[in-house]
Amino acid sequence: MSNYPFSIDIEVIFRDIDSFTHVNNAVYFTYFETARIKFMAHLLGVEGANEIPLILAEAQCSYRSPAYMGEILTVGMRVSHVGNKSFHLAYEVVAADGRLVAEGRTVQVMYDYHTSHSVTIPEEVRVRLSDYC
Amino acid sequence: MSNYPFSIDIEVIFRDIDSFTHVNNAVYFTYFETARIKFMAHLLGVEGANEIPLILAEAQCSYRSPAYMGEILTVGMRVSHVGNKSFHLAYEVVAADGRLVAEGRTVQVMYDYHTSHSVTIPEEVRVRLSDYC
Amino acid sequence: MSNYPFSIDIEVIFRDIDSFTHVNNAVYFTYFETARIKFMAHLLGVEGANEIPLILAEAQCSYRSPAYMGEILTVGMRVSHVGNKSFHLAYEVVAADGRLVAEGRTVQVMYDYHTSHSVTIPEEVRVRLSDYC
Amino acid sequence: MSNYPFSIDIEVIFRDIDSFTHVNNAVYFTYFETARIKFMAHLLGVEGANEIPLILAEAQCSYRSPAYMGEILTVGMRVSHVGNKSFHLAYEVVAADGRLVAEGRTVQVMYDYHTSHSVTIPEEVRVRLSDYC
Repeated sequence: MSNYPFSIDIEVIFRDIDSFTHVNNAVYFTYFETARIKFMAHLLGVEGANEIPLILAEAQCSYRSPAYMGEILTVGMRVSHVGNKSFHLAYEVVAADGRLVAEGRTVQVMYDYHTSHSVTIPEEVRVRLSDYC
Repeated sequence: MSNYPFSIDIEVIFRDIDSFTHVNNAVYFTYFETARIKFMAHLLGVEGANEIPLILAEAQCSYRSPAYMGEILTVGMRVSHVGNKSFHLAYEVVAADGRLVAEGRTVQVMYDYHTSHSVTIPEEVRVRLSDYC
Repeated sequence: MSNYPFSIDIEVIFRDIDSFTHVNNAVYFTYFETARIKFMAHLLGVEGANEIPLILAEAQCSYRSPAYMGEILTVGMRVSHVGNKSFHLAYEVVAADGRLVAEGRTVQVMYDYHTSHSVTIPEEVRVRLSDYC
Repeated sequence: MSNYPFSIDIEVIFRDIDSFTHVNNAVYFTYFETARIKFMAHLLGVEGANEIPLILAEAQCSYRSPAYMGEILTVGMRVSHVGNKSFHLAYEVVAADGRLVAEGRTVQVMYDYHTSHSVTIPEEVRVRLSDYC
């Protein structure tokens, strides 16, 4: 997983699977969110999700192999693009047996919740993001 | 919504929103799924979700405007592409005040759960899908 | 349902069911919550869930018959006890075919989120609650 | 936690909290379920949740203190009653700082999914359950 410098492990629970007995398609976006919030809190030095000055503009997932209850999934993440006001994150979900489970992407926009406007990514955030490219 | 020939209405419930008080990003994929299952059950004349011979290959959502608890959202859907073994669905989520809330896309592959292989879309399914292009 | 003066209808969606193909046990508490928030918003004349000055002290559900995707469930509700600072709600979930699906109970405490203390139920709220006993 | 011989740790994720920024009331039943499935799979020596020959008859939770995103919760569990065809599990949710977050109870009935009838708890299961009283 050298291409994904930030990662977390998630165990698939019963509520994550659906009547096909595999992880439901929408749940991968919650896995991405869990990784993203940990990453951003770490990067920005904040604690709660509500202190992260971002809005999500887009999310995408390609499903490669079903995952099952009890599996430990590693969600790897990297910064795949840094723009003026927005940046992209790329995700890879890999099972303990090495199987590629899913790949995805989200687009985040730097946002000022007080003025309700998107803002330019501060230089120090840009520098830290580049450490995870 | 003339471009989206199939649609359902969904009321945003408390559990759909997150600590930002708007609909959580992953929940839109559940809204898409709810519309897709109704559409496919109708199209194929089956009842349960587990009788629908499809696997999901990809899902994508662009978030245009936040939605809030109590809002009635109309999820419109159309067939945007029909290939040999797969087809695409396009989604539009519109609030009662006309606000565009989200747009999305999913890619489905026709699948035989007995042989565990993808299969060619049967001609009669292809014809019915084309009614929703 | 004459014993349950307030009720809402909920359609079981695919995400509500689990790998046993019936509604997951935890989801009934979300059904109760959906009914409870509508009821309290109506009773108190407020709009958002975050304006409802209550905390939940207890929730209970007895499962009588499984419910399946696509079923329309009626969640009936009544006020079963009014105390000094708290009151009880009783719930009944009935399927369209008349089948009793579940019964439940929640205990709410009137709460002042500014002072972080429980408070006595105001007389006018007590009167309105008694209309739903 | 000496009174709860079986336990698992769960980290509160963003999707578990609601617009009050604390863990949603229904989510505790998913925490209980996660602990219960691990316990039963261990006790019965089976792997998947669908191999566990039980139906849930009742679930209850008393909310003692709110829990927040990022907290590590320990869900302790013990067998609190063993009847002829059913048994009770008691749960305790404790935060890392020692705070009691929630207590709960579920009632399970031994069930034969082939004949669709409840059955007497086999003697060897009864013996193993008694190890966790």
